[in-house]
Amino acid sequence: MSPAAEFQWTIRVYYEDTDTGGIVFYANYLKFFERARTEWLRAAGIGQQALAALHRKMFVVMHTAVDYHAPARLDDELKLTVAVERLGRASVQFFQQAWRLTDGQPQLLCTGRIRVGCVDTETLRPGAIPTEVLAKIQTKPA
Amino acid sequence: MSPAAEFQWTIRVYYEDTDTGGIVFYANYLKFFERARTEWLRAAGIGQQALAALHRKMFVVMHTAVDYHAPARLDDELKLTVAVERLGRASVQFFQQAWRLTDGQPQLLCTGRIRVGCVDTETLRPGAIPTEVLAKIQTKPA
Amino acid sequence: MSPAAEFQWTIRVYYEDTDTGGIVFYANYLKFFERARTEWLRAAGIGQQALAALHRKMFVVMHTAVDYHAPARLDDELKLTVAVERLGRASVQFFQQAWRLTDGQPQLLCTGRIRVGCVDTETLRPGAIPTEVLAKIQTKPA
Amino acid sequence: MSPAAEFQWTIRVYYEDTDTGGIVFYANYLKFFERARTEWLRAAGIGQQALAALHRKMFVVMHTAVDYHAPARLDDELKLTVAVERLGRASVQFFQQAWRLTDGQPQLLCTGRIRVGCVDTETLRPGAIPTEVLAKIQTKPA
Repeated sequence: MSPAAEFQWTIRVYYEDTDTGGIVFYANYLKFFERARTEWLRAAGIGQQALAALHRKMFVVMHTAVDYHAPARLDDELKLTVAVERLGRASVQFFQQAWRLTDGQPQLLCTGRIRVGCVDTETLRPGAIPTEVLAKIQTKPA
Repeated sequence: MSPAAEFQWTIRVYYEDTDTGGIVFYANYLKFFERARTEWLRAAGIGQQALAALHRKMFVVMHTAVDYHAPARLDDELKLTVAVERLGRASVQFFQQAWRLTDGQPQLLCTGRIRVGCVDTETLRPGAIPTEVLAKIQTKPA
Repeated sequence: MSPAAEFQWTIRVYYEDTDTGGIVFYANYLKFFERARTEWLRAAGIGQQALAALHRKMFVVMHTAVDYHAPARLDDELKLTVAVERLGRASVQFFQQAWRLTDGQPQLLCTGRIRVGCVDTETLRPGAIPTEVLAKIQTKPA
Repeated sequence: MSPAAEFQWTIRVYYEDTDTGGIVFYANYLKFFERARTEWLRAAGIGQQALAALHRKMFVVMHTAVDYHAPARLDDELKLTVAVERLGRASVQFFQQAWRLTDGQPQLLCTGRIRVGCVDTETLRPGAIPTEVLAKIQTKPA
C-alpha cells in the first residue's frame, strides 16, 4: 500500500513529541492519527465544534490497536493516512498509517485501527451519526 | 527556603514527562505544579469537579512565570511545594517549587509563580471566589 | 476479575488528563498504564534509568490494543492493574485495566494489552532482556 | 502590534490540546510557541537534530513568562508569532504571541517571553551558540 493512495496529513516531530529514549513517545501516534482524522473530517465539511453545537453529538474513541514498526525522531516529517474500514450507523472504524519519507523512500513507522463511536455530548450515550454527517462521510472519496 | 516548610506533593518522572534531550520537558513542570495545587485544594476540602457542579465556577490560569534551574530525569522523585503569595477576591497567586532529593540533599530544579482566576464555567467571565471556598483557602495553614 | 488480584497503582485525574469532551483523553490511558508498569518494575527492583546506564537496554512499546468501556472525569481516583500475560526472551506482554471505585463498587473503565520489547539504547535493535532483569520479572508475584 | 509583522506559524486546536474546562489547556501554549520557534529556526536553516549531531549542542528553556488573555477552543486556527528580543552569546530571548482570526479580526489570546540557553547535549553545561548558527539567527529578518 502506498501512502499516496488515501487522504494524507503531514506533521512535524517537535521536542514535545519525543521522550528520553530519543524517539517519538508511542502514545503520541494516537494524537497524530487524530489530527489526520480531524483534518479528514474538516475536508469533508465536518467540524467537531459545530457537530457538538448543532447536533449535541461528539465522536469518542472506543477501541485502538496500534503496531509500532520503526521509530520517528525529532524534526522528522511524517505522512499520516486515513481510510474508512467500516462505516456503521453509530461508529466508524479507521485504518491509519504513519510514514516517513527518507531520501524519497517511504518507510512505514506505525499502523493503527481506531474505532470511534458517536455519543450524546451530555449523557455520553451512543447514538446514530447525524444523517447529514453520515452523508458527507459516505460521499467522501477516501 | 526549605522544601519542608510548606504543603508538599511528591511525583515521579515517567517516560511521558521526558524529551529527547534526556530531561523533563519544561512545559511539564506546569502540569506538576498543577497536580500539587490540586492536591493542596483537595487537602483544604475543595474539589474542582464539585466547584464546577455546585458553584458553576472554575479556576483558570491567568499568568505563569517559571525559572528552570536544573533538569530532572527519568525515575527522579520530585517534591513540589505550594504556597499562597496573594489571595484576592477573584484570584490566587501561588509560589511553587520543584525539588529533587539527591542523597538526602534537596536540589532546587524549578520555581514558578502561577496566578489563577475564578471564572464562570459557561461564560468564562471573572467572578468572586465562592465564600465557602475562600474561607477554606484562608484557614488552610500553608 | 477483581482489581484486588494483581499489582495495583493508584492515580488521580487532573485537568491535564481531560479534554473538551469533559472526560479523560483516551490516549492518556496509555500514560496511566505505563505509570503502573513502571511502578511494577520498580517494585521488582528494576529502574529504567539504571537499565539504560548498566545494560544499555531499554523497553520500547511494540503493540497496544486498548478498549474504552466507560469514561473517567476530573478528580476521579483510578486503580490501574498490571499482569504479565506472556514473558519472552526479548519481550513482555502485559494485560492492564483501569478501574474507578465509585461508592465502593469497582467500575471497569479501560483494558489494554501492551507488548514491550527490549532494545539497545543506541541502535534500537531488539535484544534479550538482561538475565538479572528477567529473573526479577519471573520471581515477581503478579 | 499586528500579527502580520513577524514570523508566523499557523496551528489548529485538536482534542489533545483542550481540557474539561472546554478551552485549550494553558500549558499547551508553551508547546505551540515552541512549534513556532522550531519552524522559525528551520526557516533560518537551523535544524535541531543537526545541531545536536554536528555541534553537540541543544537549546534548553531557561525561563518562561506567559500571560493568558482569552481562551482558544477546539477547531480554532491560531497564528503564532516569533520575534527575537535579545540575542546573547549563549542565549536567545523570544517574544511570542498567539492570535486567533475571528471574522477577519485578530484577537490576542496569549503572550509569552521565552528564554532559551545553548547547552552541551551530554553535560547540559551552558556554552556559546555555534558561530554559524548565531550568524543565521542574526541575519534572519524577524
